[in-house]
Amino acid sequence: MTDILHDPNSRGFASDNYAGVHPEVLEAIASANGGHQTAYGADVYTTRLREVFASHFGDGVQVFPVFNGTGANVVGLQSMLPRWGAVISASSAHINVDENGAPERVGGMKLLTVDAPDGKLTPELIDQEAWGWGDEHRAQPLVVSITQSTELGTLYSVDEVKAIARHAHRHGMKLHMDGARLSNAAAALGVPFRDFTTDAGVDVLSFGGTKNGLLFGEAVVVLNPAASDGLIFLRKLNMQLASKLRFVSAQLIALLEGDLWLRSASHANAMAARLRSSLDDLVSEGAITGLEFSQPTQSNAVFATLPPGVADRLREQFRFYDWDAAKNEVRWMASFDTTEADIDAFVAGIRAELAPIA
Amino acid sequence: MTDILHDPNSRGFASDNYAGVHPEVLEAIASANGGHQTAYGADVYTTRLREVFASHFGDGVQVFPVFNGTGANVVGLQSMLPRWGAVISASSAHINVDENGAPERVGGMKLLTVDAPDGKLTPELIDQEAWGWGDEHRAQPLVVSITQSTELGTLYSVDEVKAIARHAHRHGMKLHMDGARLSNAAAALGVPFRDFTTDAGVDVLSFGGTKNGLLFGEAVVVLNPAASDGLIFLRKLNMQLASKLRFVSAQLIALLEGDLWLRSASHANAMAARLRSSLDDLVSEGAITGLEFSQPTQSNAVFATLPPGVADRLREQFRFYDWDAAKNEVRWMASFDTTEADIDAFVAGIRAELAPIA
Amino acid sequence: MTDILHDPNSRGFASDNYAGVHPEVLEAIASANGGHQTAYGADVYTTRLREVFASHFGDGVQVFPVFNGTGANVVGLQSMLPRWGAVISASSAHINVDENGAPERVGGMKLLTVDAPDGKLTPELIDQEAWGWGDEHRAQPLVVSITQSTELGTLYSVDEVKAIARHAHRHGMKLHMDGARLSNAAAALGVPFRDFTTDAGVDVLSFGGTKNGLLFGEAVVVLNPAASDGLIFLRKLNMQLASKLRFVSAQLIALLEGDLWLRSASHANAMAARLRSSLDDLVSEGAITGLEFSQPTQSNAVFATLPPGVADRLREQFRFYDWDAAKNEVRWMASFDTTEADIDAFVAGIRAELAPIA
Amino acid sequence: MTDILHDPNSRGFASDNYAGVHPEVLEAIASANGGHQTAYGADVYTTRLREVFASHFGDGVQVFPVFNGTGANVVGLQSMLPRWGAVISASSAHINVDENGAPERVGGMKLLTVDAPDGKLTPELIDQEAWGWGDEHRAQPLVVSITQSTELGTLYSVDEVKAIARHAHRHGMKLHMDGARLSNAAAALGVPFRDFTTDAGVDVLSFGGTKNGLLFGEAVVVLNPAASDGLIFLRKLNMQLASKLRFVSAQLIALLEGDLWLRSASHANAMAARLRSSLDDLVSEGAITGLEFSQPTQSNAVFATLPPGVADRLREQFRFYDWDAAKNEVRWMASFDTTEADIDAFVAGIRAELAPIA
Repeated sequence: MTDILHDPNSRGFASDNYAGVHPEVLEAIASANGGHQTAYGADVYTTRLREVFASHFGDGVQVFPVFNGTGANVVGLQSMLPRWGAVISASSAHINVDENGAPERVGGMKLLTVDAPDGKLTPELIDQEAWGWGDEHRAQPLVVSITQSTELGTLYSVDEVKAIARHAHRHGMKLHMDGARLSNAAAALGVPFRDFTTDAGVDVLSFGGTKNGLLFGEAVVVLNPAASDGLIFLRKLNMQLASKLRFVSAQLIALLEGDLWLRSASHANAMAARLRSSLDDLVSEGAITGLEFSQPTQSNAVFATLPPGVADRLREQFRFYDWDAAKNEVRWMASFDTTEADIDAFVAGIRAELAPIA
Repeated sequence: MTDILHDPNSRGFASDNYAGVHPEVLEAIASANGGHQTAYGADVYTTRLREVFASHFGDGVQVFPVFNGTGANVVGLQSMLPRWGAVISASSAHINVDENGAPERVGGMKLLTVDAPDGKLTPELIDQEAWGWGDEHRAQPLVVSITQSTELGTLYSVDEVKAIARHAHRHGMKLHMDGARLSNAAAALGVPFRDFTTDAGVDVLSFGGTKNGLLFGEAVVVLNPAASDGLIFLRKLNMQLASKLRFVSAQLIALLEGDLWLRSASHANAMAARLRSSLDDLVSEGAITGLEFSQPTQSNAVFATLPPGVADRLREQFRFYDWDAAKNEVRWMASFDTTEADIDAFVAGIRAELAPIA
Repeated sequence: MTDILHDPNSRGFASDNYAGVHPEVLEAIASANGGHQTAYGADVYTTRLREVFASHFGDGVQVFPVFNGTGANVVGLQSMLPRWGAVISASSAHINVDENGAPERVGGMKLLTVDAPDGKLTPELIDQEAWGWGDEHRAQPLVVSITQSTELGTLYSVDEVKAIARHAHRHGMKLHMDGARLSNAAAALGVPFRDFTTDAGVDVLSFGGTKNGLLFGEAVVVLNPAASDGLIFLRKLNMQLASKLRFVSAQLIALLEGDLWLRSASHANAMAARLRSSLDDLVSEGAITGLEFSQPTQSNAVFATLPPGVADRLREQFRFYDWDAAKNEVRWMASFDTTEADIDAFVAGIRAELAPIA
Repeated sequence: MTDILHDPNSRGFASDNYAGVHPEVLEAIASANGGHQTAYGADVYTTRLREVFASHFGDGVQVFPVFNGTGANVVGLQSMLPRWGAVISASSAHINVDENGAPERVGGMKLLTVDAPDGKLTPELIDQEAWGWGDEHRAQPLVVSITQSTELGTLYSVDEVKAIARHAHRHGMKLHMDGARLSNAAAALGVPFRDFTTDAGVDVLSFGGTKNGLLFGEAVVVLNPAASDGLIFLRKLNMQLASKLRFVSAQLIALLEGDLWLRSASHANAMAARLRSSLDDLVSEGAITGLEFSQPTQSNAVFATLPPGVADRLREQFRFYDWDAAKNEVRWMASFDTTEADIDAFVAGIRAELAPIA
């Protein structure tokens, strides 16, 4: 047996994928173990998973479990695009800045990016790149991709998603949603998944599990089957088909069959909110100075700017990332296993650093 | 908690990836759980994994855990090849027949394939495609890829690997080994891994875990660092970088730190040998007719031809695949969890079908 | 003005693309010169070209002039295939052996190749790779590609093309024809182009001009518009769109509007036939020994085997290539500008080498 | 012979590639015609071309003639980059906006683009994207690409190129120059090519011929052989290798051996300057209103904004493109065959449209 090499009680604010696996998910893996099941998805867990996704997203949706979020995005987008297609996204989108060019290099698509200060596209922003159809010199804008919740911790409202979907569809474009943190979005919006996905006009979705307590596992979910083709082949040829797929499916079932997805995401959101409100209070009271929030806190992320040097000193005790080092902007993420005590200790640490000089 | 939807006591002979997860591997995942660990590989388990691989393959080897075998092959081969490179392989190689063109489409390489009846390349076979260096019209043969144990269940001896490595290197080509079943090979050869890998001249290895009892997880192992470049980037851009990488590493540690790899692989090999020898005996005794073995049984696979119709009737009770339906050739795989009783029941089933008509 | 650096009266048998430009083609370029024409194909010559192609291949065909044959093949095949597609071809096909992997690397397709001793596929040979539709692990065979005349100088009869088209279509596959030497084929068969293309069931054609006297220029010709998509974009993104496209179109008009294509191709064929029959006579007469023809001479190529050393000695005077050096097999190509005197001198040279020792 | 289908005396201002072929270039093609020359570049014209390029760019440069500008850019950039590389360019660069994603799709590179109002990068602008080396999630910025003269008709001074080269090299990045209009730049700067290429630190150059009077033909020129690898293979596999390469080389020789490049480019620049100064005069005199120049006129392009509707009315007589329709910005290009009368007629046409209402 592997020794425990790490401190299972140490947590930070660097990323929700620094967290481990939710115990209920581990149990689900154990339950699905033993015996033989047909590899590559012809197993009973994957069959059951289809029902679970249908219950959340509507009858007729198609589900393709994959390994990771980059894979879900690239495979899903490829299935929506001809070889000459382009994707309009925010320049802050994960597909643009965090995937080492996988969408372009592996997916063969061009990204047409638009600056969106809060990480959210709008019909107006989309129009900056939504033009040139039929011009052979221009990569054809045929998909709009939005992230929910965004890379900046912000949320699209149901109506905002609908407006984007209408706008995209009116121009013959499809709508893709990167839902690496879709559960956090649903929890924050307080509505079922389908309200801001299937029913809002999203065509294909990357459903995220890893950041919400899975060991690994995401799913490409085709909400509008007319908008996607060949996923069964694309998943394999893009090296995203797990042989023992039953275990990806079992994890996603564990997350989605009951309310684990909601409990975990709501908790993470609440911990971010606790961090935000605690710091807000300290600012109001004048107990700390120099901290400014750079984004609204709408899901499980808090973005702030700090005086020079403070981030590095805080990192001697607490793990988190710079977001934009040039602006002294940092990102603090909460996850399903963040505790109130974790937050309170962090707030105290920040307070110690930012207390005004008497 | 997920319900148990399947029969954990039902096993077949279709594939070693129909099997589940070895209990010791599940324990290792649980041990590595809890707390936060840096994502993407800067965790203590991945650090430990490097030591474990060094102990098997030699100091200085580099290890890049990835999701699956196709990913390991494509990423590893890409790291060995310029954009104009080609790979010489057996036409029966997994990279040629089972990866939906991922090496070509994602990896951007050309495969130069050679028919090898037992799945094994030789210097002479390699020479069928090892020519044309400098000719701009020809994809440049710069890597030879062999599979150990092969897709046909056969084995390269240590000397055979060495001869291929010498031959490849003499022509300026590198040697890649697809080791999806490397543990089965090592167990069958009865030698340490490094005897037929590092020390035999293999440059880059795909080390397989999934088929030997992992939930998922393989590793690209660079045995000769001069033969590979950019793996850290290639893994990510090919969508093979797990965020919670500690769990891939912990599984591989569980497999390789002690002798789990050897116990599991030896057992699977022994079960294949039991199947082979039991059937051999029946043939010798005249107790069955019409079965012929189409490959030697050197690891955990048995290949045979059967009279028309027999395979389908057997499949009413036992799961396995046709290998070449046109020839009535079937493949029977044993795995770490195959039992003697499984084998004996299967032998009895075959006997019932193939008993000579009195 | 550029000096004449070469000997304009020296010709050989290495390739029909060693020849220059037919004078009528040069005149056509000059005629199309002067003034401004819309770049990239919205010019009057390209408009006229469509009518010319329609007159040969039928109303409704689409024409996309490109730079070269590799480009025509890759762009045409891409337009016929989804991202998961594969192409069945002879292993001797230009797309497999002479394009440095462009179909795989740039086109993203897998080639499923079949050995065809005379370079010609048949329904039976196609069936070696026409299987596995729906199997996600297998690159999906969705196009059959044949070359007319073949790389080995052989010809498909009209009925042979029809049989292949029927067979391909029956299995849901499309038929592509690499017509780098289509004019030679039409001249040899003595039938209009459309008899063995459009009317025989070919879906997309690479029409070759360069090897029949153009400076450069080929065309992707879509005979069945339902079988191809996005060529306007694929041509550009594959870097095959000439800005001054009028000059490609003017050359193709010069070739195809009158009978230049037929005159040039018939002449080249006749010169190959003269070479073949002259040598046949010498063999019959016992005037030479050691030469054997390795392929029938059906278009403008002669393939033969020679005693060791003879090819190199002949090359001191005459340029030509080894085809398969291991077998002492050579290829001799005739072109539009080959003269009877060229052939006769070559025959004399061969006779001098192969005269039996008295 | 092809009929003359167009008006050889009609010219416009849409693009320098609407023009035809310079008569001296046609003569060079004719001179190189006749007889056989080894295909694919082993011909005497290509050998001579190397000397010609060496005379302009320095001993030791390597020259790879290709078909078109997109091809030159993609092939050249690929030769400079590993598979994980990215290119920093202005967002207005041809590689970003006019190549239908070829650099990403075929070249497999990511573009990191920076807004540059005059089309020119600076070290400061480059720094917006020059970061993140070693971060596996980020496409690695390893090449800077600049266009000379730029897509906006502006020029880099010798010192500006040097400053960019120093900056790029200091950060381990290479410098690529898209020289589709390099001759116009040299003519405008009044210095030899090598002053602002080889000697200024440019590593690889796309040398443009088509826009300066060739029928077709560009060249990838490797100024720093240590900065590029595999071009001989990359050209072929990217479908940019002409079989009758002697004719590309002969054209480039015609352009560069004497002063044709300079005469043609200087003339085009002078015609743009005439247009600019004529209009400037009219503006100064109050003879026209509503026209504003949106870029300096430094080579053969004039950019201006016009009152709504004016561009379309002018286009009833004169061909040219909108550059940014939303801003009523237009682009007027002069070419080697633009006449003073062409300019004067156009100025008169503009004057008629923009004369102030009395």
